[in-house]
Amino acid sequence: MNYLKKLVMAMLCLMCTLQVIAQEHPSIMLTKKNIEAVRKGTTTYPLLKKSYQKVKADADKAIAEPINVPTPKDAGGGATHEQHKKNYTNMLNCGIAYQISGDKKYATYVESMLLKYAADYSKWPLHPKRKENHQAGKIFWQSLNDFVWQVYTIQGYDMVYDAISQKNRAAINAGLFEPMLKFFTIDCKETFDKIHNHGTWDIAAVGMTGYVLNKPEYVEMAIKGSAKDGKTGYLAQIDQLFSPDGYYTEGPYYQRYALLPFIIFAKAINNYQPALKIFEYRNQLLANAINTSLQLTYTDGTFFPINDAVKGKTYETAELVYGVDIAYADIKPMPDLLDVAGRQNEVIVSDAGLKVAADLHAGKAKPFAYQSQLIKDGASGKEGGLGILRYGNNEDQQTLLIKAASQGMGHGHFDRLNLLYYDNGVEVFPDYGSARFINIESKKGGDYLPENKSWAKQTVAHNTLVVDQTSNYKGNPDVAQKNYPEVLYFKSDKNLQVISAAERNAYPGVQMIRTSALLKVAELSKPLVIDIFQTLSDKSHQYDLPFWYKGHVVDASIKVNAFADQLKPLGEKYGYQHIWLNAEQPVKEKTGYLSILNNKRFYTVHFATDTAVNLKMLSLGANDPEMNLVESKAFMLSSPKSNNQTFFNVIETHGNSNPVSETTTGASSKVSDLKILSSSKDQVTVSFKVKNKLYTYQINYNNKENFIKLN
Amino acid sequence: MNYLKKLVMAMLCLMCTLQVIAQEHPSIMLTKKNIEAVRKGTTTYPLLKKSYQKVKADADKAIAEPINVPTPKDAGGGATHEQHKKNYTNMLNCGIAYQISGDKKYATYVESMLLKYAADYSKWPLHPKRKENHQAGKIFWQSLNDFVWQVYTIQGYDMVYDAISQKNRAAINAGLFEPMLKFFTIDCKETFDKIHNHGTWDIAAVGMTGYVLNKPEYVEMAIKGSAKDGKTGYLAQIDQLFSPDGYYTEGPYYQRYALLPFIIFAKAINNYQPALKIFEYRNQLLANAINTSLQLTYTDGTFFPINDAVKGKTYETAELVYGVDIAYADIKPMPDLLDVAGRQNEVIVSDAGLKVAADLHAGKAKPFAYQSQLIKDGASGKEGGLGILRYGNNEDQQTLLIKAASQGMGHGHFDRLNLLYYDNGVEVFPDYGSARFINIESKKGGDYLPENKSWAKQTVAHNTLVVDQTSNYKGNPDVAQKNYPEVLYFKSDKNLQVISAAERNAYPGVQMIRTSALLKVAELSKPLVIDIFQTLSDKSHQYDLPFWYKGHVVDASIKVNAFADQLKPLGEKYGYQHIWLNAEQPVKEKTGYLSILNNKRFYTVHFATDTAVNLKMLSLGANDPEMNLVESKAFMLSSPKSNNQTFFNVIETHGNSNPVSETTTGASSKVSDLKILSSSKDQVTVSFKVKNKLYTYQINYNNKENFIKLN
Repeated sequence: MNYLKKLVMAMLCLMCTLQVIAQEHPSIMLTKKNIEAVRKGTTTYPLLKKSYQKVKADADKAIAEPINVPTPKDAGGGATHEQHKKNYTNMLNCGIAYQISGDKKYATYVESMLLKYAADYSKWPLHPKRKENHQAGKIFWQSLNDFVWQVYTIQGYDMVYDAISQKNRAAINAGLFEPMLKFFTIDCKETFDKIHNHGTWDIAAVGMTGYVLNKPEYVEMAIKGSAKDGKTGYLAQIDQLFSPDGYYTEGPYYQRYALLPFIIFAKAINNYQPALKIFEYRNQLLANAINTSLQLTYTDGTFFPINDAVKGKTYETAELVYGVDIAYADIKPMPDLLDVAGRQNEVIVSDAGLKVAADLHAGKAKPFAYQSQLIKDGASGKEGGLGILRYGNNEDQQTLLIKAASQGMGHGHFDRLNLLYYDNGVEVFPDYGSARFINIESKKGGDYLPENKSWAKQTVAHNTLVVDQTSNYKGNPDVAQKNYPEVLYFKSDKNLQVISAAERNAYPGVQMIRTSALLKVAELSKPLVIDIFQTLSDKSHQYDLPFWYKGHVVDASIKVNAFADQLKPLGEKYGYQHIWLNAEQPVKEKTGYLSILNNKRFYTVHFATDTAVNLKMLSLGANDPEMNLVESKAFMLSSPKSNNQTFFNVIETHGNSNPVSETTTGASSKVSDLKILSSSKDQVTVSFKVKNKLYTYQINYNNKENFIKLN
Repeated sequence: MNYLKKLVMAMLCLMCTLQVIAQEHPSIMLTKKNIEAVRKGTTTYPLLKKSYQKVKADADKAIAEPINVPTPKDAGGGATHEQHKKNYTNMLNCGIAYQISGDKKYATYVESMLLKYAADYSKWPLHPKRKENHQAGKIFWQSLNDFVWQVYTIQGYDMVYDAISQKNRAAINAGLFEPMLKFFTIDCKETFDKIHNHGTWDIAAVGMTGYVLNKPEYVEMAIKGSAKDGKTGYLAQIDQLFSPDGYYTEGPYYQRYALLPFIIFAKAINNYQPALKIFEYRNQLLANAINTSLQLTYTDGTFFPINDAVKGKTYETAELVYGVDIAYADIKPMPDLLDVAGRQNEVIVSDAGLKVAADLHAGKAKPFAYQSQLIKDGASGKEGGLGILRYGNNEDQQTLLIKAASQGMGHGHFDRLNLLYYDNGVEVFPDYGSARFINIESKKGGDYLPENKSWAKQTVAHNTLVVDQTSNYKGNPDVAQKNYPEVLYFKSDKNLQVISAAERNAYPGVQMIRTSALLKVAELSKPLVIDIFQTLSDKSHQYDLPFWYKGHVVDASIKVNAFADQLKPLGEKYGYQHIWLNAEQPVKEKTGYLSILNNKRFYTVHFATDTAVNLKMLSLGANDPEMNLVESKAFMLSSPKSNNQTFFNVIETHGNSNPVSETTTGASSKVSDLKILSSSKDQVTVSFKVKNKLYTYQINYNNKENFIKLN
């Protein structure tokens, strides 16, 4: 337990250094000793200049409007919710504008607003609305938003601290920050001590406030938990919430969200207590976590939308602007981080932002180095993981993701061994993400919709196997949380990248093993996806393997005959009730293909199975009275009754269809003759042809030296 | 008849000049006297350099492969079809490469290929496949492709003419071009004399071949028709196929296609017979037609996809690279054409391309000047037209199109008074375009699908009124072709742009008048779309007004309750059989709204009607066994039974929802209280509020001085 040892060491350090906290303002992202340099940088380095201009313009807009501190009333997306969010942004912007410009009007704005909050805060009861299953805040409908509010606000306060009179500071502390510290640590004690991202925000807010207000007892609680015993608190969170690879178990969307309080608080700790060497903690865990967040994006910058994710979120998000700036300036100046910073087109107006903008300006950037890798899950890295296979440069990259990670707590989906495929800058086989219109108040206040549970979390919503029309673990998150897949093999050679993983608990009596590869053969310019999904069972089951796809099916070996004058749902529960069955055809030959045209490129999915299957064409939208679901469509290989079953799929990425020049090339797939030669618990052997060259592809589950044999 | 006079004058000129045809090669896009300058330009001006590098790379690729002149066999998109298309491109590229580089290997390639064609051409029968309802070619499944082939090939031949021996030229002429001229003028005489874009390609091929081969009789036939009486032929086509505004009646997609033979042949005429002043003909009709083609795009460069259009086609298309280069270099050097040339990112390696690349390099470009305008249809400009209303710069422009043009011949849709709306770089209320996967052989050889007729052409596929669930003119193209809407009014002031048009023949006994405006009010930053669709009839009818939309409905005044467990088609014919009815709700209050979120912006459609309507939610895909139809959805205001009916719609464009920053602003519409105060055949008066300010908006059909009165 290497990191436990480190924890003890760190705690010892902590004891020694707690009393020597610097008391200088500002001291978080922007520090007093660096102000002159940053000020100069805002006129010298284009990205810092631009970033500051935006901050200043926003600050100017803020001070031109009357201060508005409404009594909390609305749910997420509503007027008071948005106003309080706007207020913390305004205070932070004005704090920065004050430090850079020296103009006191910005400080006065922050001061006046904080005095208003200080006058009202204690009078406010718990928020009258309540986010379902979430602890209430006072300013917002959930306490989480209150923590976030304070993480930003305390920075704004820190920046104008010296400009506020002693008397007014006392009023602000007594009326706002002190009762807030109590609320965050006592009323919200459960959250404060929870190993969970809401807890991280709580801790960061409390810890940073403790530093700025010079209240070491709160800092100590933040770092070591409310009992100050290290069982909870910041270090425990770093130990338990991230895998050694820096993966946060809830998935990329929550990873980037969880990351921000970790790194801002780390920056504060590093400034106030540098001896703690927080950035070195657990083998530079925070640097790993930032890098892993970036690795969890496709080349267009969007996060892989596994679990409850808002689609369209990219690494341009504020959390990763902080992350990239701090990683580069405070941890390790990797030149490929500058590429990301350039595409973020923004730096934090701060010590770190100065360094990033200066080095970017000096031309030090290199393309971000996306890597094929296995990202392990679990505090000790033993709870499965994500296999990410990539081929091609950042301009046109094939990316295959196999999700063999653990459940990911409450935001996890029942999507064991899910497959996502990207190419040519877009999704090909996507994940639905969450059923949610974030911050659209008319859609359930911007919160998760009922269909998030009834659809988005269910197994059939994903590109993975469904047994007997039920979801993994019968949709029970508690049981699912206790089990995780086993990664059998991972390899990332240039011409053969493979991830193989088994899930043995999602369905009683059914073992599922998925082995997916990017295989470059000499006959084709782009690698093939070789995907073998095997089930082993003593009993007979229905096995459904859906491929949710983007684009339009333009060719198929089987004549599709869609239902003409009536549509019915595919099933009754576990998400099946939301699917319209558009067509159903038997595939008597046990093999076939479909070609999809997507973003001007063709994707031909060849399949072979060892028992006869039906091909079903599906679209989303049944049992959706409020039309909450977003258009989606799939084809599904459905095996009505078998014990063991092997699905062998080869996805060829080929050709081009250009509507501008009206030319089409390479529309025909060069792959043919898929055969399953044998399939057992020890070994699977398949063959296929590429331009009539025969390939035999063998998986040897028990031979790690020769796991894949290709002839 | 101003242009008839001109025609006579032109014909007189023609008589005088026909004998003095220059005989110098090359003499079309690239001319002998300019070769040195163009050669130098390919090393000097970036865009010409890049364009030539591409031509040369393609030429090098061509000569590296064996010459392949297959016996014609396949339909559009098939192997022999694509090979013959590739061959003419290769010959043109090699011709250019020969002229610029002086390397004879390129000329030899063209020579060898032409000798091969010359050896085989006469042996080929009519193409064994036949495009439905189209005249067969010999090289391709329709003669049109043969004409196109020759328009390119003759240019390639012209460029290597001097490098081919007299003997081989004789063989090529005797084996290929002369039989081809006969085929084009005798076998295809009907097409040659048809006032139609297929005829234009035939004529251009024949005329250009006549020039290059020094066969004036063919040139004369091309210009004056096979009878040489001017009743058909090139000049007659210019007179009859374009409106005085340069609009080609089949619509933008075919306009850009039709344009190419017009302008290449014009360029040839201008080089060989400059005295004809062909670019001045009919008030610079060809320049107008090129400009109008560009005006028929949205700011992203895509053509408005009305009628049978392939969506995604942009002005980057080769035809408009020719068009823009020639318009700029040979007709009028408008600096905003250089903006388009820059975005085309290509010039023709030619005299014209040299001038464009040089001036672009000299920084002379200005943003393309999109204009709000009425583009009149019909040879004399009296057969309706397109009203295009635009607001905002080219980066973020609202564009409203009302189609009140004539039927547009065989590729026309039954979409009288159709509305298209674009904003923020994307479609908001789109047109389906054609039902076709161009050049995808697996989809009916890339040709129009059966659903083009059963769906795409039908009235209900468009954003316009459907009476009694039938299409305009009961879907009869011949009757439709004889009738056209009347444009009642057009105005394009800064704060009020209006188009009003009436269609009185599409449905017996029903007058339809649509008056649509972009109205900028002080309370809002973006103009509102004010859309009033009025019907007048003595009898009772069902009136359906669909809005096919992009995005997702996120709010509605009416609680939508979608069918949960079964979908049925909306109707049985006229396209209704292809629509699934997802939901149906009565709107008892006669007014309501729906808000759509599309590309991060909100669009709220408020509506008011003078009789109660039902709101229907629709999606496409019923009775589509081969799944040829592309996902589409609509809401429809359906008035089950009334004589006169007024639909009053206000579309507000507002707010922003950013998934990266997770912020939403301006999600609530500021428009309210829509009322129809009165509606008669002479006048319609409506009112609405914007942020509680009351507006009264009145249409006075009989008062052109005061057509719209706003209080």
